[in-house]
Order: sequence, then C-alpha cells, then structure tokens
Amino acid sequence: MEKELAKSRGLELIKRSKIAIVGSLDAHGYPVTKAMFNAKHDGLREVWFSTNTSSKRVGGFRTDRRASVYYVDEDTFEGLLLVGTIELLQDEESRRMLWVDGCEKYYPQGVYDPDYTVMKFTAVRGNYYHGLRNIDFEVR
Amino acid sequence: MEKELAKSRGLELIKRSKIAIVGSLDAHGYPVTKAMFNAKHDGLREVWFSTNTSSKRVGGFRTDRRASVYYVDEDTFEGLLLVGTIELLQDEESRRMLWVDGCEKYYPQGVYDPDYTVMKFTAVRGNYYHGLRNIDFEVR
Repeated sequence: MEKELAKSRGLELIKRSKIAIVGSLDAHGYPVTKAMFNAKHDGLREVWFSTNTSSKRVGGFRTDRRASVYYVDEDTFEGLLLVGTIELLQDEESRRMLWVDGCEKYYPQGVYDPDYTVMKFTAVRGNYYHGLRNIDFEVR
Repeated sequence: MEKELAKSRGLELIKRSKIAIVGSLDAHGYPVTKAMFNAKHDGLREVWFSTNTSSKRVGGFRTDRRASVYYVDEDTFEGLLLVGTIELLQDEESRRMLWVDGCEKYYPQGVYDPDYTVMKFTAVRGNYYHGLRNIDFEVR
C-alpha cells in the first residue's frame, strides 16, 4: 500500500469516527488511554478535544506532552495511529472554536469556565493498517 | 459509585467487547495504542492476546513492559482502563491455550510458528467510568 493512499484512508476513518482514543503517560510513566469525542481536526496533522482542566489526564500533559490519537473500525479491521504532542489551551479563540450546545453539561460556567481546557494534538508521524497490512508515514 | 460495582461493570464490559485497545511505549517513549482481539481473560487481573513475534509492538515490550488495556462502549459511554505489565510467552501451554481455528491465517506454520507470541497482561490497577463519573481501584 502506498503512503498517500494510507493517509487518505486514514483521513476517511477520522471523518467517520465518533470517538478517538487518546494515549498519554500517567504519573508513573505507564501508557494510558481514554476515549474522547472527536471534536475537530485539520487533516491528519491537528486534532482538537475539549476536556476538564481538573482531570488527571490534563495534569499529566503539563509534565509530559507526548501523546497519540488512535481511530479504529472494528468491522473493517482498519486502524489509524497518530503520534505527536499535546498543547493545553485556554485562550478565548480556542475555547469558542470548540464550544457547541451541550458543552454546559461538562462546563457549567460556560465558555469561560476555568475547568474548560482545549487540548490541541499535533501529529508528527502515523501508521495506518487494514487487515494484515500496515504502513508508517510522516505527518507534516 | 462503589468500587466493587465499578469492577463488576468493568468485567461485564470486557465480556461483551470484541476488541481491547492495548497501550504501550514506542522506541521514543511515546504512548501508542493498537486494537487487538480480546482472546482470553481471567477476571480483571489477566488478559491474554496472540501477536506476531516480529511486530514492533512485541519488540517494545522486550525493553519496557509497562502497558494498559482499555475497553470502551461508545453507545453507553462506559470505559474500563487496566494498567499493568506485559509478559511475552512462547511455551507450548500458552500457545495451545490461545490457539483457535483461523490462527493459521496469522501464523502459517501453526502452533509452533516462531512468529507466534502470546502476550500476557497482568493488571495492578484500573479505572472504570460511566458518563461523567469514574472510579479508581486496585486489581489483585
């Protein structure tokens, strides 16, 4: 499988996924994962999530920004792994960009709720697989 | 939510999951993930997978055994994270225990195929969430 085809199929998988599996490191350096809503993405390069500032996950990213974002379709045996780093953002533009009706369930004080944090993931490389075949690629 | 209830709901989630998301560390210390078939488990303590000896993932576990196993139900907003370590096994008993019809697709030489490795995950702690609530527990 050619790299451009793998990337284009990976992008299709992101588009049809409701959730992404975010990988991070816990306080003891163990790899941990959590499903998050796939809020916004820009190609394969950037993925954006909203999260609670007070969560353990966010605390971890303050000390180690290494992360991954994974999408899987268990019916078609396809998976896309993106590897990169997380930035935590609380500026107004980022907050407004991800805010949608229903967010007040998680952040009762609204768009300026101090417990509302935007996580921006930036990929540097990835791997796409389908069945038994898989291919590594760089992300720019 | 009480710890015993969280563990019992987590166990139900394992039982109805076709796949588990295995978290590991890549050669650069980044957290990476891959969906694997949920081959066998013993409560919340042990989960067993079969994999290719030659895979990058298996190579990583030779240098750092830290791992996690994650189950998610995106319809009910439930998730179970187990954190622990991986052992790589190639003894006959382990190989036979996981071997089922169809494995020859992945390991053409059969149960003694040198590219067939059994991964045994042993959990030490976990987290179960349902909706906005989540609870940490130890696994013994």
